Amino acid sequence: MRHDHLITSKQLSRGAIETVLDYAAEIDADPSAVADRHADTLLGLLFFEPSTRTKMSFETAMKRLGGDVVDMGSVDSSSVKKGETLADTVRVIEGYADGLVLRHPKQGAATMASEFVDVPLVNAGDGAGHHPTQTMLDLYTIRENAGLDDLTIGIMGDLKYGRTVHSLAYALTNFDAQQHFISPESLQLPREVVYDLHQQQDGTGIKEHDSLEEVLPSLDVLYVTRIQRERFPDENEYQKVAGEYQIDADTLAAANDELTVLHPLPRVDEIAPEIDETHHAAYFEQAHNGVPVRMALLDLLLSDDKRIGGDSDE
Amino acid sequence: MRHDHLITSKQLSRGAIETVLDYAAEIDADPSAVADRHADTLLGLLFFEPSTRTKMSFETAMKRLGGDVVDMGSVDSSSVKKGETLADTVRVIEGYADGLVLRHPKQGAATMASEFVDVPLVNAGDGAGHHPTQTMLDLYTIRENAGLDDLTIGIMGDLKYGRTVHSLAYALTNFDAQQHFISPESLQLPREVVYDLHQQQDGTGIKEHDSLEEVLPSLDVLYVTRIQRERFPDENEYQKVAGEYQIDADTLAAANDELTVLHPLPRVDEIAPEIDETHHAAYFEQAHNGVPVRMALLDLLLSDDKRIGGDSDE
Amino acid sequence: MRHDHLITSKQLSRGAIETVLDYAAEIDADPSAVADRHADTLLGLLFFEPSTRTKMSFETAMKRLGGDVVDMGSVDSSSVKKGETLADTVRVIEGYADGLVLRHPKQGAATMASEFVDVPLVNAGDGAGHHPTQTMLDLYTIRENAGLDDLTIGIMGDLKYGRTVHSLAYALTNFDAQQHFISPESLQLPREVVYDLHQQQDGTGIKEHDSLEEVLPSLDVLYVTRIQRERFPDENEYQKVAGEYQIDADTLAAANDELTVLHPLPRVDEIAPEIDETHHAAYFEQAHNGVPVRMALLDLLLSDDKRIGGDSDE
Repeated sequence: MRHDHLITSKQLSRGAIETVLDYAAEIDADPSAVADRHADTLLGLLFFEPSTRTKMSFETAMKRLGGDVVDMGSVDSSSVKKGETLADTVRVIEGYADGLVLRHPKQGAATMASEFVDVPLVNAGDGAGHHPTQTMLDLYTIRENAGLDDLTIGIMGDLKYGRTVHSLAYALTNFDAQQHFISPESLQLPREVVYDLHQQQDGTGIKEHDSLEEVLPSLDVLYVTRIQRERFPDENEYQKVAGEYQIDADTLAAANDELTVLHPLPRVDEIAPEIDETHHAAYFEQAHNGVPVRMALLDLLLSDDKRIGGDSDE
Repeated sequence: MRHDHLITSKQLSRGAIETVLDYAAEIDADPSAVADRHADTLLGLLFFEPSTRTKMSFETAMKRLGGDVVDMGSVDSSSVKKGETLADTVRVIEGYADGLVLRHPKQGAATMASEFVDVPLVNAGDGAGHHPTQTMLDLYTIRENAGLDDLTIGIMGDLKYGRTVHSLAYALTNFDAQQHFISPESLQLPREVVYDLHQQQDGTGIKEHDSLEEVLPSLDVLYVTRIQRERFPDENEYQKVAGEYQIDADTLAAANDELTVLHPLPRVDEIAPEIDETHHAAYFEQAHNGVPVRMALLDLLLSDDKRIGGDSDE
Repeated sequence: MRHDHLITSKQLSRGAIETVLDYAAEIDADPSAVADRHADTLLGLLFFEPSTRTKMSFETAMKRLGGDVVDMGSVDSSSVKKGETLADTVRVIEGYADGLVLRHPKQGAATMASEFVDVPLVNAGDGAGHHPTQTMLDLYTIRENAGLDDLTIGIMGDLKYGRTVHSLAYALTNFDAQQHFISPESLQLPREVVYDLHQQQDGTGIKEHDSLEEVLPSLDVLYVTRIQRERFPDENEYQKVAGEYQIDADTLAAANDELTVLHPLPRVDEIAPEIDETHHAAYFEQAHNGVPVRMALLDLLLSDDKRIGGDSDE
């Protein structure tokens, strides 16, 4: 039997997303109930670019389900360096593992790799492509803190290069969400993403801004992302722009008291440490939610008796 | 009690080899029967040079037996860099583990190291020396696909520097195998290896060729190895030579319909991808066989109640 | 409930030290009794500088208690490289693990980090600061071989930069130990350490020497440390000095027959290999003792029903 793969959150319908989030909540409430569910399972980790955070989260999830991992390690010390193709690498490593997690710098790598293997493959980021488990943990954290219906969310920072942001925005079109995109002009959402989002949602829920100020009071959730210095040819321009998209206690004085602040981490100076102790901050909780969400996804993918649910109706 | 070590396949008699292969087949047929056999066992991994594939295979094997590993990691971050001797390193790490797997760039390292430790040590490759678990998985795959008796095998590619090839050739002298060695003149088997093989087998089963064409139709198995560019001072000479020892669908048109093609992997362009989907291709299966074969070997070495069997009668 | 952290051996009273050593001895005598005690426990390993030996020892200890680890891996491939603060890193990783082990190049890092997390944190070395589990395994080995009361110990080598040595010296002031410090003048104990030791012990038990010869016959234990070449601006001066603080069979001819020789390892040429086979040598045993000692410490820190005992009365 050919197993499911998890390549993009676009493949998941609203129903499938809710199945995963409900199951993650169930696991989060009582992890001991699944602590031995995958006692003889080995998950193969293939990270073709470094991503400690994501790798540790998958490893923790698998081990919290009673299983274990085998890790390809860094590309520098692997057969890849001898010129092996990705197709060959995954076909060898599927012989060691009951499932694979793949991170790769090239967009489309996960789809291609999934065509060569018979065990479930999870895309843990393929360049500018997708990173569905990040999207699911973002959705989970939003649902826990503000709910996914009647949601007003601001997504701020680097919206041009941020894979995380694009996936989240697409996923939110499954729900009744008003999305505000806040960025400097040079880091706006790519036009094709805006076009796609409009197609999904009749454009009713999508607005772009160059300042947080005008929308902040209306937000239930503010999702902050990092503006990378290296995107700017000129240091001065970076300094000018970055400062406007950083938040501190003063910024939040104008916010809804119920505002939840999220960030995919790591942060540098986008969010002042003084926010950490406020009830707005949910970014560490967000990182921790990666574990129950990935436990739910891995269990659904690795179990013969469970399914994520209906495929997308796309 | 002093345990056994596994340093070279030369130490194994035909009887011992068959014990291991039989046991590997038993495990392969029902891995769940041994899934908890070594639940409290820790295997120490000491890889003084990178070898992701071999390391993952040992790690998988140990974990499939219910055990776990502790990995020294890369030499760059270890005490070795501070000038520690191999003898000291293995004496420290044997305190952490119930068995050791050693990969080292220097020939003879495994033998030397084994003299300092009281836990079983498995040689996972010592420079130009031995790599007995690779040989055992090669033998296992040959036996599963073509049988080890009345075997006609072609071994092609870099026969001069290929440790894998030398070990396999020696091991096959235990069986009724006709061995054809196919390589460019500059990459022929070293004369002392040819001499030794003749000594083992009266020379009846050993022939050298510079072209595959003349022997292909008679072969049950074709074992292809990589010709490394860096062996040739002149790029032109490499191009000329390498092309003649690559196989594709056209090449195999002249082969026995039952031909099994093997390769220790990684491959670069020695075998065209179009072969992968044919019934000839067994190289991914060969890589996967590393797991049951290493499970069998580890179980035999780590158990008090099992033995690999008689030592070599050499 | 806020758990304990283990930051420095100074926080441990004599009673607490003895509780740990007694429990380590109990575990060493019958490790199987605790083999499943922490079956669902994950220990997070955060090594901001390489230390294979210490990391493997912690990993082994956790696994011998039935648990497992999640390892941040090298800093090169982590979020730290993107500019994340230590406080953020530990707050993310505590979401994956039930306890943390931290190694960091900066003195004070463990104390700082411990203030941000709710799971127990063990300091595995913070620059020139502390490394309490090394001190505990040193004390354990001394107690097993010579006893901690009425002890006469020589501590030799680099006493200026050696964190290990300072911690051990402080810890020994809890016991009736006569401590002889043997080093070249340029590598003597820092004056403030000597001052502190005198304060702890009325100076009765502390003496400094520039030669081993005069004290060797009186010693129960000789603790040798490495003199690092890079401490000397001049190669000639290094050669002159280092040679005087190396020991071989000739050196030990003048020793007490019961002398125990210790070394934190790795050694380079401070102890001649010919000593390894004598009954004096206990440095490999010392390295191996890291496992039961860390098992005892981890079990005490990770269990709700156990405590290390009274805090220091400092």
